[in-house]
Amino acid sequence: ARSIDLAVIPGDGIGPEVVAEGLKVLAAALPQDVKLETTEYDLGAARWHATGETLPDADLERLARHDAILLGAIGDPSVPSGVLERGLLLKLRFAFDHFVNLRPSRLFPNTATPLAGRPDIDFVVVREGTEGPYVGNGGSMRTGTPAEVATEVSINTAYGVERVVRDAFERAAARPARKLTLVHKNNVLVHAGHLWKNTVDRVAAEYPQVTTDYLHVDAATIFFVTQPERFDVIVTDNLFGDILTDLAAAVTGGIGLAASGNINPAGTFPSMFEPVHGSAPDIAGTGKADPTATVLSVALLLRHLGREDEAARVEEAVSADLAARDTASPRTTREIGDDLARRVAG
Amino acid sequence: ARSIDLAVIPGDGIGPEVVAEGLKVLAAALPQDVKLETTEYDLGAARWHATGETLPDADLERLARHDAILLGAIGDPSVPSGVLERGLLLKLRFAFDHFVNLRPSRLFPNTATPLAGRPDIDFVVVREGTEGPYVGNGGSMRTGTPAEVATEVSINTAYGVERVVRDAFERAAARPARKLTLVHKNNVLVHAGHLWKNTVDRVAAEYPQVTTDYLHVDAATIFFVTQPERFDVIVTDNLFGDILTDLAAAVTGGIGLAASGNINPAGTFPSMFEPVHGSAPDIAGTGKADPTATVLSVALLLRHLGREDEAARVEEAVSADLAARDTASPRTTREIGDDLARRVAG
Ligand SMILES: CC(C)[C@H](C(=O)O)[C@@H](O)C(=O)O
Ligand SMILES: CC(C)[C@H](C(=O)O)[C@@H](O)C(=O)O
Repeated sequence: ARSIDLAVIPGDGIGPEVVAEGLKVLAAALPQDVKLETTEYDLGAARWHATGETLPDADLERLARHDAILLGAIGDPSVPSGVLERGLLLKLRFAFDHFVNLRPSRLFPNTATPLAGRPDIDFVVVREGTEGPYVGNGGSMRTGTPAEVATEVSINTAYGVERVVRDAFERAAARPARKLTLVHKNNVLVHAGHLWKNTVDRVAAEYPQVTTDYLHVDAATIFFVTQPERFDVIVTDNLFGDILTDLAAAVTGGIGLAASGNINPAGTFPSMFEPVHGSAPDIAGTGKADPTATVLSVALLLRHLGREDEAARVEEAVSADLAARDTASPRTTREIGDDLARRVAG
Repeated sequence: ARSIDLAVIPGDGIGPEVVAEGLKVLAAALPQDVKLETTEYDLGAARWHATGETLPDADLERLARHDAILLGAIGDPSVPSGVLERGLLLKLRFAFDHFVNLRPSRLFPNTATPLAGRPDIDFVVVREGTEGPYVGNGGSMRTGTPAEVATEVSINTAYGVERVVRDAFERAAARPARKLTLVHKNNVLVHAGHLWKNTVDRVAAEYPQVTTDYLHVDAATIFFVTQPERFDVIVTDNLFGDILTDLAAAVTGGIGLAASGNINPAGTFPSMFEPVHGSAPDIAGTGKADPTATVLSVALLLRHLGREDEAARVEEAVSADLAARDTASPRTTREIGDDLARRVAG
C-alpha cells in the first residue's frame, strides 16, 4: 500500500512523549512516496475525568477503520485501578479480537541485564489476548462484608486456543531454532491445561519440523533467569503471558525496551502496537522516558503491515543505538528519538 | 512437648532420599530427652499404580492425628498430570486447612545466584494455600471437540483472605524491616483484587508499625530480579504465590535450597513441611539431590512446634555448610545430610 492510515492513542503519563518519538522514527523509516496519515484519539485518564467515558462506541467505530493503532500507555493513579485497564486497554484488545499478543524478547548488545553472565536471549512470547482470566467473567457477593465471596473465571475455548497455537507454530516454523514451548499449569488448572496441552499436541503433528515442549509456569520463571537461551517461541495463556513477559523484559534490559503487538492476524480489525511499560506518571514530562520500546513496537507494526525491510531497519537502528549508548551521559526522550530517526533514515 | 509424633510422606523420585537426610538432621537437632516418633505413609505414584488410590479417607484420618507432617516430593511422569497433585498434595493442603503456605527466601553466602551483583535477599512469601484458582472449581464441556469450553474458577472469600493477611501482618511486625507487600493483579482481576486490597488496607490500620505497599504480579517479577532486597514479607494469592516462589528460589540459589511450610496456624490439623522442589525423577537414586531444602523445611517444622532454638541451629548449620561448600568437589545427598547433622549436633 502507498499509504498508512494510523490511529494514535498517546494516552497517559509518558505515553504522549514516547509516541511522538515512535511516530518520528516511523516517518523516517517509510519510503518518501508512502503517505502516513495519523489521527489522534484523546482516550485515557484526562478524557475519563472530563466525561466519565473510557471508550465510547463512536470512538471504537472510528478506530476500527484505521490500518493499525499505535498506543503509548494508559493509566493514572487518579483513576481507580481497573477502570482504564478494563474499560479501555482490554476493551480494545477484546473488541478488535487481538488474539495474538506478540512480545519479542532479545538481549541487545551493551544493554544492562540483571543476569550474571549475559546469556544469549532471543525468544518471542505469543500470549493469548482474548480469553483466560482476562475475560472479565467474575463478580463478588456480600461485597465489603465478612461473608464476601469474590470470583474470577478463566474461560478457554478450543476455538480461541487453537488459533493462537497455530499462530505460534507458524512463527516457530519460520525461525531458525524451530522450537515451541507451551507454558501453563496443567497439573493444577487441569481443565484449561488439558485443552491447551491437547491442542498443542494435536497441531504439532502438522509441524514435524518444530520441536515442542511443555513447562509449568512456575518452572518457566526459573528458566527465564537461569537459562533463558533455551527458549525460542513460547505460547501461553493471557495471564501467564502477562507475568512472563514482564520478567522477560526485566532480564533483557528492562521494560524500557519491551515492545508488543496486539495482533488480529485475520485483519478483520486493526492491530494495535504498544510498549509493554506503563504510563510511569512519576517521570512524565521529565524527558527521562526511553522511547525505544515504542520504536520497537513501530517495527512490529511495520512488519505486520508487510513492510519487513523497514521493520528490520528500525530494529537495526535500535541495536546500533544501544551498542553506542554511553550510560554516563544519558539522553532525553527526544534525543533518543532523534538519534534513532537519523539512523533509520541514514 | 517431650515428644514429636511425625508423619512422614517420602513420596516419589528423590523424595525418599531427601527426607532421610531431613530426618537425620531433625534427630540431631532435638535434645536427647525429646522422643521423635515417625510413621511412614507410602503415598505417591507407586501406591497409585498399585491400588488406584491417591489419598484415601483412612490415611487422611490417620495423618490428622500426628503433630506434623514431613513430605518429600510427589509426582512421576508415569502418572497423568494433575492426578497426584490434585488428589494427594493439594488434597492434603485443603483437607488440613493449610492456609499459610510459608516460603522464606534468603540468599545464603557462597551460593550461586543467576543475578549479577549478588543483592542482599531475605524475604518471606506468605502464599494463601486454600483458595484462589487452586480450589478445583472448573470444568469443561464438549471436551475434545472444536466447540470445547474449559473454565477455571478462582474463589476468594473474605474469611480466607483476612486470615492469611493477618498472619502476614503478624510476621511482618515481628521482623526488623516491618514491611508488607501485597501482590495481586487488581487492575484486571478486579473482584478478587479488590477483596485482597481492601482487606490489606483495613487490617493495616491495626498495624501502624508495618509499612505496606502493593505491586501487580507482573511488576513484582521485575523487582524479584532487579531489586529483590526491597522485599520483606509478601502476601499473595495461591497461584501468584506459586509462581513467585519458584522465581524467588531461582534467584536465591535454586530450587535445591527452597523450603516451605503448609501451615494451619490454629493447629486444628497438622501442618506439613516440604521442599519447594519436585520429585526430579531424572536424578532419583543418583545421590545428586541436594537435601538442603528439606533440611530447611525441617527448621520451619521445628519453629512451628515452638522449638525456635533448634530451628535456628539447623538454619545456622545450613548457612555454615553452604559457606564451606566447594563446588569443585560435590557431595552426595547423604554426605550433605551427614555434614549438616554433624554441624547441628556439634
Ligand atoms: C495494564 C494491564 C491491563 C496490561 C495487562 O495486564 O495485559 C499490562 O500489564 C500489559 O502487559 O499489557
Ligand atoms: C506440584 C504443584 C501442585 C505445587 C503447587 O502448584 O502448589 C508446587 O508447584 C508447589 O509450589 O508446591
